[in-house]
Amino acid sequence: MMRKPTIDDVAREAGVSKGLVSLALNGRPGVSAAARERIDAAAAELGWRPSTNARSLAMKRAYSLGLVVRRDPSTFEADPFFAAYVAGVESVLAAHGQVLVLSVVPDHETETQTYRRLIADQRVDGFLLTDLLESDPRIELIAGLGGRAVTLGRPQGESPFPAVTRDYASGIESLLTHLAELGHRRVAHVAGDENMQHARTRLERHREVADRLGLETVVEHTDFSPEQGMDATRRLLARPDRPTAIVYANDPMAFAGIAVAHELGLDLPGELSIAGMDGSDMGRFVYPTLTTLDNDPAGWGRASTQALLDLVERGQAADVPLPPAALIVRASTTAPTATA
Amino acid sequence: MMRKPTIDDVAREAGVSKGLVSLALNGRPGVSAAARERIDAAAAELGWRPSTNARSLAMKRAYSLGLVVRRDPSTFEADPFFAAYVAGVESVLAAHGQVLVLSVVPDHETETQTYRRLIADQRVDGFLLTDLLESDPRIELIAGLGGRAVTLGRPQGESPFPAVTRDYASGIESLLTHLAELGHRRVAHVAGDENMQHARTRLERHREVADRLGLETVVEHTDFSPEQGMDATRRLLARPDRPTAIVYANDPMAFAGIAVAHELGLDLPGELSIAGMDGSDMGRFVYPTLTTLDNDPAGWGRASTQALLDLVERGQAADVPLPPAALIVRASTTAPTATA
Repeated sequence: MMRKPTIDDVAREAGVSKGLVSLALNGRPGVSAAARERIDAAAAELGWRPSTNARSLAMKRAYSLGLVVRRDPSTFEADPFFAAYVAGVESVLAAHGQVLVLSVVPDHETETQTYRRLIADQRVDGFLLTDLLESDPRIELIAGLGGRAVTLGRPQGESPFPAVTRDYASGIESLLTHLAELGHRRVAHVAGDENMQHARTRLERHREVADRLGLETVVEHTDFSPEQGMDATRRLLARPDRPTAIVYANDPMAFAGIAVAHELGLDLPGELSIAGMDGSDMGRFVYPTLTTLDNDPAGWGRASTQALLDLVERGQAADVPLPPAALIVRASTTAPTATA
Repeated sequence: MMRKPTIDDVAREAGVSKGLVSLALNGRPGVSAAARERIDAAAAELGWRPSTNARSLAMKRAYSLGLVVRRDPSTFEADPFFAAYVAGVESVLAAHGQVLVLSVVPDHETETQTYRRLIADQRVDGFLLTDLLESDPRIELIAGLGGRAVTLGRPQGESPFPAVTRDYASGIESLLTHLAELGHRRVAHVAGDENMQHARTRLERHREVADRLGLETVVEHTDFSPEQGMDATRRLLARPDRPTAIVYANDPMAFAGIAVAHELGLDLPGELSIAGMDGSDMGRFVYPTLTTLDNDPAGWGRASTQALLDLVERGQAADVPLPPAALIVRASTTAPTATA
């Protein structure tokens, strides 16, 4: 009867220890070229193929990265960042023969359990931390459990993990300067979920630059959803001192803002300039096409995945500053008409 | 020195075989209540916790499902079905303590390698097959490798796998009847990628129902992208016998169609009625709000995941017919104005 060869058979045939086969298999240092050759020859002769499970058990490597997203499914659907980000992650993982373990969780408790379980079961080698919070408990949790991670953005507090960052400050300055040069004086900001770090930094930067440029600013707060973006737009356009331009902290809210303006019969972009952030693809398929700040979610995906693989494989990885977010001027921003 | 207890220690302490511990642990039949009690007691006394890796090796179970998506990243980003589908998948997996292994691949060759690798390495217990092709090579590939899968839609040829299906035929009939009753006589269809099964069935059904209702139909072919939806709309609106209504085979193309109509200065919906398919959330945040056929991607996610778990755990699963796609009438469809 044919029996499937095991790692023990390979070790016996090659005349080395099982541990050495394991080291050779994982491309670790400490295996002589001669031993490596004998192991390869023995494996080929026996027709032995390592299973990932066996590799993982031997070396405590899962050959998987984890992405745990805490979201309400409906905001998840409306967020163009996510799919493009995952595509970037996958492009790097595919080149390394590794996979993404994805978990979408509804609340903080399930989120914590999920991290604990994935680490305890050694199902992933590290985590990609998106949607960074102002004070993010995941960092202490993962570090405390001996896990590894890379953060998208730099956390407020202490963090032992590498951070991938993108300078949005200069982009916001370019956007507001562009609007000021077109002649706008009242430029509203529709801010995102203030628990999220990037929502707060975008708002703070808007305030700071608007002050410097002498622009009046009204701020509306939202949870980043198009639904709340729509409501915020209605409130802004009902004001007696209605803004001539609205800057939204993400693109989906800007799309909703365009819809409200059409519904109210405003002549776009003359009567209302609109700008988004994050440069989603859909901005090319609305009318008027959307002025926005590029964010390149796929670039975030590639950089954070590469940093995490470096951390897993070499035990350390440097912070990665991505290129500053660039202003993309399209048709939705123009000089305000006299009647506005 | 403290040593971490192993499954062998538990078996010895309980006075049973290691195989029986494995069976008990996986909740399999064939373990007496008395043996199960002894095993639980031994595990508790030794402080033993099964690792998923050990469970997987023992039972050939990965406790993961696989989703391999062959897509260009840009169409991936623009597709609202995907994120909502994944949210539905995750809601079921989370309840079972299992995870999704996600792989995005650029071409057919990488796709085939990915299925082979995931099956050979026992990294997943089965696959969710989305984007079903007219003649889909994945079914034979996976079946030939001894893998398991569930298809979204019923494949044309033979398939050993359960299929989750939704009747779209009655929805398309409702939509065209709605347009006919509003007084439309020229109703165009912007079809999707004809390699994909649902693109063809939607088009065939449109033709059949339009014939029966006495509607004139012009068809434009696309790859499902908003870019091509935009081009198709321009061609349709440039015709001397311009349609008074356009039905798009997915929502993102319908959004692009709305943008083109705004750009051309058409009065919507009077001068052009527009309808999409798949009921994406974004349809509530465009102007005019989009009439569409509901598809409930999260429902597809839940049903296909449950069917696949059934197949993995019980060795068989029945086909799952989802409720027929319902017509959602919003503001983008109305009676054609006399001038149109």
